[in-house]
Amino acid sequence: MSRRDFLAKSGAAVAGTALAGTAAAQSAAPASDTIRWRMASSFPKSVEVLFGTADLIARRVGQLTGGRFQITAHAAGEIVPPLQVLDAVEKGTIECGHTAPYYFIGKDPAWAMGTCVPFGLNSRQYNAWWIHGGGEKLFNDFTRESGVVSLLAGNTGSQMAGWFKKEIKTVADLKGLKFRTGGMGGQVLTKLGVVTQQLPAGEIYSALEKGTIDAAEFTVPADDERLNLQKIAKFYYYPGWNEGGAALSLQVNAKAFDALPDAYKAALQTASAEANTWMQARYDALNPAALKRLVQGGAVLRALPPAVMDACFKANTELMAEASAKSPAFKKMYEHMVAFQRDQVAWFRVAEGGFDSFMTRAKI
Amino acid sequence: MSRRDFLAKSGAAVAGTALAGTAAAQSAAPASDTIRWRMASSFPKSVEVLFGTADLIARRVGQLTGGRFQITAHAAGEIVPPLQVLDAVEKGTIECGHTAPYYFIGKDPAWAMGTCVPFGLNSRQYNAWWIHGGGEKLFNDFTRESGVVSLLAGNTGSQMAGWFKKEIKTVADLKGLKFRTGGMGGQVLTKLGVVTQQLPAGEIYSALEKGTIDAAEFTVPADDERLNLQKIAKFYYYPGWNEGGAALSLQVNAKAFDALPDAYKAALQTASAEANTWMQARYDALNPAALKRLVQGGAVLRALPPAVMDACFKANTELMAEASAKSPAFKKMYEHMVAFQRDQVAWFRVAEGGFDSFMTRAKI
Repeated sequence: MSRRDFLAKSGAAVAGTALAGTAAAQSAAPASDTIRWRMASSFPKSVEVLFGTADLIARRVGQLTGGRFQITAHAAGEIVPPLQVLDAVEKGTIECGHTAPYYFIGKDPAWAMGTCVPFGLNSRQYNAWWIHGGGEKLFNDFTRESGVVSLLAGNTGSQMAGWFKKEIKTVADLKGLKFRTGGMGGQVLTKLGVVTQQLPAGEIYSALEKGTIDAAEFTVPADDERLNLQKIAKFYYYPGWNEGGAALSLQVNAKAFDALPDAYKAALQTASAEANTWMQARYDALNPAALKRLVQGGAVLRALPPAVMDACFKANTELMAEASAKSPAFKKMYEHMVAFQRDQVAWFRVAEGGFDSFMTRAKI
Repeated sequence: MSRRDFLAKSGAAVAGTALAGTAAAQSAAPASDTIRWRMASSFPKSVEVLFGTADLIARRVGQLTGGRFQITAHAAGEIVPPLQVLDAVEKGTIECGHTAPYYFIGKDPAWAMGTCVPFGLNSRQYNAWWIHGGGEKLFNDFTRESGVVSLLAGNTGSQMAGWFKKEIKTVADLKGLKFRTGGMGGQVLTKLGVVTQQLPAGEIYSALEKGTIDAAEFTVPADDERLNLQKIAKFYYYPGWNEGGAALSLQVNAKAFDALPDAYKAALQTASAEANTWMQARYDALNPAALKRLVQGGAVLRALPPAVMDACFKANTELMAEASAKSPAFKKMYEHMVAFQRDQVAWFRVAEGGFDSFMTRAKI
């Protein structure tokens, strides 16, 4: 899920921002009065699952408070451009934003820990790390320094590796490949000779047609389907090792959050927790049929060869060391996460993995 | 997770039940007044994760309503015995109960669909079926006939297959095996010559010692650890094909639920949704260290041989047909679930399975 995936509509900040006042001022209202917040999503309404997750949080908070805590969810670009959501929350222009924290690794690689790193935790393991493993506290210790509270609020699950015009048979096939991808996954591929670039989602098809790029990754079948890439880059590779489970979160201005009555804090936390699983379940429910339609439409499913996976894994190990050298906050969280992950993987190999792998060969 | 796992403390209904009045009478109070509900758990406080899930729901609802909707969570036996939770909710003796619906397959096999059937959905797939696949509506259409609303509220994930004194190398090794297990998994094993029996958790060790039983299954390492069975039946088998993901739910008296103000309905729903993922994450966080300690203490991990898994799968297919013939409600939900499952398994084979299986061999 490249940071530029959803930028099409985000030309400029929309008028009205200057009128907003600060979040802290609004939330200082007494508990009995109505509190009104604005939530900016980094995603357009057309990406139904992602925007729907933000919208669910807003609606639930309204229901939970009998309409006394009103949050309106705004699509990307309506108040601020998608990649300025965090800045706007930090400044208090908006009280909260629903986004993927790894969009902000330019500020500090540690923001990646709020979404994923390549070869990181899967969706369920991320929940365990966040809720019971100490992840929530660690990440919030970091984001509080920017004046932001982070509430886990969504996951895509393992993504696909992307659409390729030609088959990838060896590591050498990556050399010089012009690939529309970004983030830390893109940085890994750069080490293997891939020429990465970022493009708005709406320009991918024509770039593949013109040969400006050879390959492109987006997210999961339910979203990928709308790009129609099976017509032009039919090899559809998995798994998305760069995003084994990509978490979203609700970034909340810390002053605004701290000023909320306890019941409203609980409403925001509980609604975000519900939305977290709602989003993963939604993708899980939509992906199978979307994948079938893609294959019927010409997509050719391919697993990345083990040697390519191994090369990406090795390059990622280097990248993680570089990011750790650059950012003490990244280093602290990454080491904590990896220790947790080792245990998780060992356990998932047993009951969960044993059950799942039997079911893949059972004739149900 | 046998239905008798947690019965030790449940001798008799506890005094006080007769004083309760009906749930409907209590919840008819105006929204501005305090509403007080009692929640009966089917589990003792000592099973920390299971009782903790009920307690989280009760606490969250209190926080969300500023203390105006007060629910007290009671451990198994405090108000009603663990296996009478559903009856008590139906009658309105208590307003709600936190339990595993498959404990009530004696009433109708269809209750299993609220927890799991053998070789059914894993935890994440169950969420997708329930939240977005139509499962919640189907199951509630069924439970509403008993005057009960069901809210999904927890999952154990894939369980272990149990503790065995001797290795299970062939299907023939199951013949005559005295196995402490129950539910539909037990019915499957009966078809393969296993002699199943139910025992309270506290009596398992001595039954193994005396030779009254040869094997016993409980739940997952985090719970299994307290039974100390590695000393007496060291072969610890996986996967728990009988419970690939066991869901719990909050069973709510329908009249009491329908009489709630909308904000309190939302509080109950959202808190249950949060607790659903909280519980799975808690087991995921605890199991790895518990499994390590068990292995260090003498447990010998073993995968069930493929031929044994296949035989159980075949016997389960017969059992599902028998249950479908017996109960139209089971048939309707089971067929719906299996169709959903086929798609899920096909999709999980791709990105999710591809990612997870690489990670099991990666040197993280």
